[in-house]
Amino acid sequence: MKAKQMKDSYTVLAQLVLPMQANVAGNVHGGEIMKLMDSAAGVAAQKHAHTNCVTARVEELNFKRPVLVGELVTCKAQVIYAGRTSMEVFVTVESEDTIKGRKQIALTAFFTMVSLDKSGKPAKVAPITYNENDIYEKKMYCEGEKRYIARNKRPS
Amino acid sequence: MKAKQMKDSYTVLAQLVLPMQANVAGNVHGGEIMKLMDSAAGVAAQKHAHTNCVTARVEELNFKRPVLVGELVTCKAQVIYAGRTSMEVFVTVESEDTIKGRKQIALTAFFTMVSLDKSGKPAKVAPITYNENDIYEKKMYCEGEKRYIARNKRPS
Amino acid sequence: MKAKQMKDSYTVLAQLVLPMQANVAGNVHGGEIMKLMDSAAGVAAQKHAHTNCVTARVEELNFKRPVLVGELVTCKAQVIYAGRTSMEVFVTVESEDTIKGRKQIALTAFFTMVSLDKSGKPAKVAPITYNENDIYEKKMYCEGEKRYIARNKRPS
Amino acid sequence: MKAKQMKDSYTVLAQLVLPMQANVAGNVHGGEIMKLMDSAAGVAAQKHAHTNCVTARVEELNFKRPVLVGELVTCKAQVIYAGRTSMEVFVTVESEDTIKGRKQIALTAFFTMVSLDKSGKPAKVAPITYNENDIYEKKMYCEGEKRYIARNKRPS
Amino acid sequence: MKAKQMKDSYTVLAQLVLPMQANVAGNVHGGEIMKLMDSAAGVAAQKHAHTNCVTARVEELNFKRPVLVGELVTCKAQVIYAGRTSMEVFVTVESEDTIKGRKQIALTAFFTMVSLDKSGKPAKVAPITYNENDIYEKKMYCEGEKRYIARNKRPS
Amino acid sequence: MKAKQMKDSYTVLAQLVLPMQANVAGNVHGGEIMKLMDSAAGVAAQKHAHTNCVTARVEELNFKRPVLVGELVTCKAQVIYAGRTSMEVFVTVESEDTIKGRKQIALTAFFTMVSLDKSGKPAKVAPITYNENDIYEKKMYCEGEKRYIARNKRPS
Repeated sequence: MKAKQMKDSYTVLAQLVLPMQANVAGNVHGGEIMKLMDSAAGVAAQKHAHTNCVTARVEELNFKRPVLVGELVTCKAQVIYAGRTSMEVFVTVESEDTIKGRKQIALTAFFTMVSLDKSGKPAKVAPITYNENDIYEKKMYCEGEKRYIARNKRPS
Repeated sequence: MKAKQMKDSYTVLAQLVLPMQANVAGNVHGGEIMKLMDSAAGVAAQKHAHTNCVTARVEELNFKRPVLVGELVTCKAQVIYAGRTSMEVFVTVESEDTIKGRKQIALTAFFTMVSLDKSGKPAKVAPITYNENDIYEKKMYCEGEKRYIARNKRPS
Repeated sequence: MKAKQMKDSYTVLAQLVLPMQANVAGNVHGGEIMKLMDSAAGVAAQKHAHTNCVTARVEELNFKRPVLVGELVTCKAQVIYAGRTSMEVFVTVESEDTIKGRKQIALTAFFTMVSLDKSGKPAKVAPITYNENDIYEKKMYCEGEKRYIARNKRPS
Repeated sequence: MKAKQMKDSYTVLAQLVLPMQANVAGNVHGGEIMKLMDSAAGVAAQKHAHTNCVTARVEELNFKRPVLVGELVTCKAQVIYAGRTSMEVFVTVESEDTIKGRKQIALTAFFTMVSLDKSGKPAKVAPITYNENDIYEKKMYCEGEKRYIARNKRPS
Repeated sequence: MKAKQMKDSYTVLAQLVLPMQANVAGNVHGGEIMKLMDSAAGVAAQKHAHTNCVTARVEELNFKRPVLVGELVTCKAQVIYAGRTSMEVFVTVESEDTIKGRKQIALTAFFTMVSLDKSGKPAKVAPITYNENDIYEKKMYCEGEKRYIARNKRPS
Repeated sequence: MKAKQMKDSYTVLAQLVLPMQANVAGNVHGGEIMKLMDSAAGVAAQKHAHTNCVTARVEELNFKRPVLVGELVTCKAQVIYAGRTSMEVFVTVESEDTIKGRKQIALTAFFTMVSLDKSGKPAKVAPITYNENDIYEKKMYCEGEKRYIARNKRPS
């Protein structure tokens, strides 16, 4: 399989946070944001693998600041490492108060997605390459590889 | 009020189309997409006016091709003309089959949004300027102005 | 195909507006109402064409007054003109405060719906006739015809 | 309090049944329809009492035929008897296949709704009168009265 | 068919009540709770019959106290009597304020569910037995049987 | 603050998986399940802290097997360690095919929840004790403590 560029899977999902997604204090339920992140991770994986992909694992999902009702939530996802049948996707969520014009990182996480063939079995995915001159891409790739190796050593 | 740049209000909303948003034939209900466009128009208006904004009018909403379940829908909105208390927002919707890697314009429309002050009354909005060297921005502005003038002549 | 009466497609959809459909100010999102109008236009078209129908175009969608949380929203739709494979549907939305007993027109719009056959291709629709003694039906038909002709002249 | 006519509370809610409201066999979940009936009963009670009203009891809710995905569901509700602080509302649900043009009664039920004042306490409601020449209204009233008396005798 | 124990069908559904499920006063819409009860009744019937089951009738659905936003709602259902192709399911709803640590019965009802075979026709269900030493189970069974006989005598 | 027992926060949420929560292949979206787990973690934390609690971190969220449309999903959560203002909650998800009568663990994860006071600032939580004779509770507590210490050492 021909290698894919890291940037090929770059995905943006974005939505306005509605009152129905928040608790009484006006904070958005963590679960609503996790659901959006999962969608974005799925699309990024699909852009890389061109197959149906499912979530296998979520790691280091950190809420850095609360997301509030009425904010614009932009979720960015990108495949940063590809194993045999799985991909690691880095997902960030930015929240923006469009009235005040203020934007902040609200969450980040790593999703492991598995590519499935038409019978629902894990399917091989293309290798991934990164732009050697892009320090960010290189760092992401190396960390993704490290986590992949650590996961596969561990008895699960 | 200080004029704002046309590009300042540029807004992207994007979501994956779920089975629950489609009819039996797998086509997404027009109403679901219109709802997304309305959200995007609202955010763009808010970025320009920094107030709560409501929809006053939708014109020339054209469905160019159907949106299908499983596609990634990306909705882009931008204020292209500003009147006294209203703004004209141009909204486009692109649908993308991320497995096949194919992207197409699915819909376009013009939304008129009104800026409201805290008591719910129409509030003045900043004028808008565009990049003189950008043919697209210039064309958008001129057409928006023409529609604005036509609307305000007409007995409503 | 045998002609159909204008009144045969008369359709009423109605729902109570829930808090989850509104913005922080208690106004219902325009997009929610547009979604309801699109459903009603679809049912009216289906009553005329007896096929699956999709939205092709929305024109002159005007918000005359805001719809508030807790109001009863009644959406009426009727095919007012039939072209070869498309129908023009006039849609009105009435909002009613059932505690105070007050009812008002909140929105109106014209939807163009296209009849599809089982393979998803545009399908011929029955012609439409109106009651010659009903001034309202006659006016609707004539205006619908005018818009239909104007649309088909225009390079799209 | 001045008596109200039975027909004053007549309420119609109507919606198109979406795939998301059905089970795998294409039958709409009973719960979805019950939710719609509860809304209609609430609006009818509100039209009679002009207060916030809550559900106290549902009796004889009978599913006469299944409702299918894609059908138009029309729910009609009317207060048929008024006690001191409660009202009995008769609710019927009709389902219509708009492609085939076939309409049938799908469910009926009796809802007991209680009128609440602003502090959430039961509030007196206006008496109800019916058109003496309307056999249907008379029958409804008498049966409602009978059920009301039976309920109030019973140790609850 | 081999008889089943009453306890085999015991089912628990539970959810947190969200603001989107409530009216302006913070009370949960009766319809939302009825929908949850219908789901629980369906699962209990399915555990007994091991087929697809649909709702045929709801009786004596009583709201004993209002359910409030933010409460944990736990809905318990159990088949208490089995006829030829139908089952009677007793459903209770408990609401819990988890901050104050207070729990109360909010609603109860009897649902009649019908077992369907793969072609959608009523299918025979296994008989039900109860633990002779459990007074509660015995009482439930006897009352269910009484209602079943009464229903089948009545001209429907 | 008086210590709380580990079992005091034991929480069960359960729901039937609807078609609208699944992808085209009939697998439930990971995001839907994550949302349910987040709710359960929130309720468990609230039972321990008796305050409003928000999600701070999710670790080791593993999908062990896919959840399918029509299955009963039961999510169990329990506070297993309490720090100064945060709690670690262990969450498991079980899916059950109620027609075939088969039940399996589908996911597990650790959620870190933070207790908030009324002004939205982190609030102290009660210490937690476990039943010394319960090997499972002891193991959970020790692992939770280890993770808590590791997290607080790390520069975040």
